[in-house]
Amino acid sequence: MNNYKAKIYPINPHEQQIIGYKCYPSILAIPDPIDLAIICIPEKLVLQAVNECAKKKVANLIIISSGYSEIGNKKDEEELKKVLEKNKIKLMGVNCLGNYDAHTKFDSMFIPTSRLKRPKPGYISFISQSGALGAAILDLMAFNNYGISKFISYGNATNLDESDYLEYLSKDPNTKVICMYIEGVKDGNKFMNITKQVSIKKPVIILKGGKSEGGSKAVMSHTGSMAGSYEVYKAVFKQCNLFEVNSLEEMFNLARLLENTVKPKGTKVQVITNGGGYGVIGIDNVVKNDLKLAEIYLRTKNELKSKLPPLVSINNPIDLIGDANDERFNITIDKCLKDNNIDILLVLLLPQTPLITENIVNVISKLNGLNKKPIIVVCTGGLFAQKIKSDLELKNVICFNHITNAVESIKNMCNYYKL
Amino acid sequence: MNNYKAKIYPINPHEQQIIGYKCYPSILAIPDPIDLAIICIPEKLVLQAVNECAKKKVANLIIISSGYSEIGNKKDEEELKKVLEKNKIKLMGVNCLGNYDAHTKFDSMFIPTSRLKRPKPGYISFISQSGALGAAILDLMAFNNYGISKFISYGNATNLDESDYLEYLSKDPNTKVICMYIEGVKDGNKFMNITKQVSIKKPVIILKGGKSEGGSKAVMSHTGSMAGSYEVYKAVFKQCNLFEVNSLEEMFNLARLLENTVKPKGTKVQVITNGGGYGVIGIDNVVKNDLKLAEIYLRTKNELKSKLPPLVSINNPIDLIGDANDERFNITIDKCLKDNNIDILLVLLLPQTPLITENIVNVISKLNGLNKKPIIVVCTGGLFAQKIKSDLELKNVICFNHITNAVESIKNMCNYYKL
Repeated sequence: MNNYKAKIYPINPHEQQIIGYKCYPSILAIPDPIDLAIICIPEKLVLQAVNECAKKKVANLIIISSGYSEIGNKKDEEELKKVLEKNKIKLMGVNCLGNYDAHTKFDSMFIPTSRLKRPKPGYISFISQSGALGAAILDLMAFNNYGISKFISYGNATNLDESDYLEYLSKDPNTKVICMYIEGVKDGNKFMNITKQVSIKKPVIILKGGKSEGGSKAVMSHTGSMAGSYEVYKAVFKQCNLFEVNSLEEMFNLARLLENTVKPKGTKVQVITNGGGYGVIGIDNVVKNDLKLAEIYLRTKNELKSKLPPLVSINNPIDLIGDANDERFNITIDKCLKDNNIDILLVLLLPQTPLITENIVNVISKLNGLNKKPIIVVCTGGLFAQKIKSDLELKNVICFNHITNAVESIKNMCNYYKL
Repeated sequence: MNNYKAKIYPINPHEQQIIGYKCYPSILAIPDPIDLAIICIPEKLVLQAVNECAKKKVANLIIISSGYSEIGNKKDEEELKKVLEKNKIKLMGVNCLGNYDAHTKFDSMFIPTSRLKRPKPGYISFISQSGALGAAILDLMAFNNYGISKFISYGNATNLDESDYLEYLSKDPNTKVICMYIEGVKDGNKFMNITKQVSIKKPVIILKGGKSEGGSKAVMSHTGSMAGSYEVYKAVFKQCNLFEVNSLEEMFNLARLLENTVKPKGTKVQVITNGGGYGVIGIDNVVKNDLKLAEIYLRTKNELKSKLPPLVSINNPIDLIGDANDERFNITIDKCLKDNNIDILLVLLLPQTPLITENIVNVISKLNGLNKKPIIVVCTGGLFAQKIKSDLELKNVICFNHITNAVESIKNMCNYYKL
């Protein structure tokens, strides 16, 4: 709850104070009205606490505590559910990691920031049935300087379920793209009705866990969900316009593209590089992913020829060769942004050569800020390369370590836009 | 040339001293015999320098200088070639980045260590027709604590070509796995004869640049090679037992597995995790990649049950759940190493949960050091996760950021061994 602007009332019968806040023996001892209670006590004590919340007229709960249907204890979860319904209390949980809002800094995750760094504010929201998986991804996103809007770990979905969160995020102004990891769906009809509406408004990218027979068995002992037939899920996702991916990287790579870049006019990709071999691999990947190779206009070609050294090769790829400096990239990207025969720019930057400086970040981010076309950067290497990558991401330029992921993501973006 | 034990004689007509070494106006002015000359001067001066080397009876040359057939200047390269042949001089280059030996610290690469960190000694050697690409990969390998043996950038292959380097590496005791990036082959028959021999002795992993028509055109203006028909190359690779991959990551991921892990007995994979969702995704990936799901023996199961908390789920995956500590991994990996129904261990470690400590590195590396079965780790997250990953790599435990790459690499390893 660091940095979140709210009045906080810790509750614990044995303490007078917790990290500087006055501590109360029960929620009923708090003089003020309460908007939200976060319960994180042993399972056997939860029901009493919830009853006290009901008495206090608390409308919203997060229950982190586990020990319910995920370990076969369906009875206690059913009983809890009834109390919540009777008192019209909305619950996130039980058996969840908590949630996080990078914009308001609301943070109910029980993992300390030393282990799980919180990502900067962005416009991707992530709903995850699995807490640990969500935690790992958040941590990786923060490390890579990727932004997030809201992270929702909903555990057993005792009361609110994935469809409710989807509906909520569809109306959230800080959410541009919705990512979901689900193992099973609580209510199929509700899910289909809601996702059909949501996916018209915002991209919904989905990863299904438990696709295989073995994975499906694993789901049973994880969240107690029925993973169901993957073929059925696949058909539902398609019918509801959910964009299905095969891995978490693929999910977030696509989400970042949809969050940060303009929609391209078509699928014609121009490769710009300072490493010949990387240019060759870039082109091979563009072709392999059924994207089109842009054919630069003769006029652009001549303009570039007049401004660049004679050894530079201006085709697709444009090879700015080993002694390329930042300005050579500046001139080339600028001209390519103006060439109508090019829809997407793939910049393969190898920063090992000495004439590339840190200023390349300003060069690319300034041109990217014009929002004319998607500019996707690949920057491979060690410390200096990682710094450039990280600084580009801070300025909302999408940057990958590897060509394969970059081109796969461009393909997914084009598929999403049905180009 | 930092740290390399050799006597160094800089040559430059205008200087008396270069970084502390006495400087000579010409190689002919050096009193001692010379084993190797590295030439890195403008192209128009190279031939004279080579003639002087011939007079001095230098048998080995590296020429970094460019300006030959790669820009259409075939004449000068042919002339140079004749001088080399006449004097029986072996040449690495022209138009190359230089080379690097992590064991002897021989380093003729012209990129400073501030831009291109040199990897630690290992047993993977990398032959690359493209210098910049090689530089980026070396830099990334160093950053990730991966080891290397020799890096050879051979540019235009004026005299020694890829087949010569392959033959050399097949006899090199510090090379266990050979990686190659090629755009075109200089002499097809020679290549086939040599690779057939080499691939019996050591794994050769190959990435071909210029597979597509567009990529093939790009090759022309890059190294001036004929990329040729990819279908023909593909058939040749297969016939010569070269293991073809589709990306540089895939290449080095497989190479690291072949370098560091024992050969598995079969393809039965056991997943061990502390994150239920990750376990589910792990299993889905194992199945998707046509590997087998290990079925742990009942005896092992019972032994584990007696040592682990009741909530732990012992199937495939084994889910050590959110409060797992290092010891829980220790017990489980140890028992799985002893279970004959398991061939490969895939450990999906989410280090965000507070009871996992830095000691997990010792736990896993000690068990991996027994060399019983391949143990492949996935560790996803930010700073703490990256530190664990990096420390595991330092102790020769293969660790990935993402499940997809890990399982793809296991599949490639099994395919390589024809399991």
